[in-house]
Amino acid sequence: MSDATTTVAELKEIVRRFVDERDWRQFHAPKNLSMALAIEAAELMEHFQWIDAEASRQLPAEPEKLAAAAEELADVLGYGLALANELGIDVAETIRAKMIKNAQKYPAADFRGRTSRAE
Amino acid sequence: MSDATTTVAELKEIVRRFVDERDWRQFHAPKNLSMALAIEAAELMEHFQWIDAEASRQLPAEPEKLAAAAEELADVLGYGLALANELGIDVAETIRAKMIKNAQKYPAADFRGRTSRAE
Amino acid sequence: MSDATTTVAELKEIVRRFVDERDWRQFHAPKNLSMALAIEAAELMEHFQWIDAEASRQLPAEPEKLAAAAEELADVLGYGLALANELGIDVAETIRAKMIKNAQKYPAADFRGRTSRAE
Amino acid sequence: MSDATTTVAELKEIVRRFVDERDWRQFHAPKNLSMALAIEAAELMEHFQWIDAEASRQLPAEPEKLAAAAEELADVLGYGLALANELGIDVAETIRAKMIKNAQKYPAADFRGRTSRAE
Repeated sequence: MSDATTTVAELKEIVRRFVDERDWRQFHAPKNLSMALAIEAAELMEHFQWIDAEASRQLPAEPEKLAAAAEELADVLGYGLALANELGIDVAETIRAKMIKNAQKYPAADFRGRTSRAE
Repeated sequence: MSDATTTVAELKEIVRRFVDERDWRQFHAPKNLSMALAIEAAELMEHFQWIDAEASRQLPAEPEKLAAAAEELADVLGYGLALANELGIDVAETIRAKMIKNAQKYPAADFRGRTSRAE
Repeated sequence: MSDATTTVAELKEIVRRFVDERDWRQFHAPKNLSMALAIEAAELMEHFQWIDAEASRQLPAEPEKLAAAAEELADVLGYGLALANELGIDVAETIRAKMIKNAQKYPAADFRGRTSRAE
Repeated sequence: MSDATTTVAELKEIVRRFVDERDWRQFHAPKNLSMALAIEAAELMEHFQWIDAEASRQLPAEPEKLAAAAEELADVLGYGLALANELGIDVAETIRAKMIKNAQKYPAADFRGRTSRAE
């Protein structure tokens, strides 16, 4: 099982089954899931909180730290997929549509070669 | 393009191309991406902040609100995929492994039928 | 020492001394402090993540849970004061000014008696 | 009105009055306030998201950017005080007690002179 061969639907199904087997849909109101997702995002940030940006780029050189951060990312994405399941959101379609919108908001020609990122 | 037919690698490639076309890898230190992800997670929470959990379950009945929340989820997942790209993380493999770990931590037999979720 | 008799400057001084005694200003770049604050805010949310809004109002009836949540709030406010120290922000003045601005944005006459809060 | 002369109780009272004048206690369940606080913390992070830690230390040299960040901090602290009001928490006492606990967890003698901060 790898990103090259796994569809988003298959990942959603893994999450759905996990939730169903524990009767956890009762807790999975979108409001609660949005909190869970934000909490996991904060746990991911903890790995980078006190180091500088350049040091954070070196994480892949430390397999244990990389694995710990990857687990937090898995939790973030897991709750994201659980929310997509609850709300009936097609993730691939929504990301594709949002990237098209972002491409119009941030035209590549305007940003390439710039060394600061205006928000 | 839908979840049923799109692999995680294809989504990662969409994000990778978007970032490369803008020379944005210079800003995409994992530290910064973890902040961006947490910020988008907070924007997703904004949609649920003042409504109660039951009302949040009714979001799919309001297509405009659903679309707005789905866009925020796309931003969250987009930054999650950008982080996976930067760190060389296989998302499908990591989620699968984390769900196995979670299944051991929260055995289905212990949780099914319970009406409160101990954390 | 209580809210009735403690000035904001006294609280800021407690935080400043704690940071100085550990040589921690080297880590207290505003960027890092903003992450620390957001992380503590997420830890505070954990206490409310799976319970509904009404149950969260009953927290004061459970002294242990209240104390645990209060500690997280102390961490949030502690980092907020550390950030104010680093940036030279007068907290009292800034809150007062922001509340005046908020009062213009959300006129009391328009909101009193309403049962939903438009954001 | 400044930090030197303003007590925490006076700030709490400003927030309490603002909330009462709008009948907003109906929305101020601790659960919702913890979300609001986390959302404002994320808005504060936005100011530091794409700049490096050293640049974030230079914020006081740019009065407009400093004022914008200070406003976000005011929002964070404002919600923190609103939560303290709802839960009946004495902020000064709680911070003082938490700093004593932190001092035991992170003894000054162990940390002074170290150039990395173990978490």
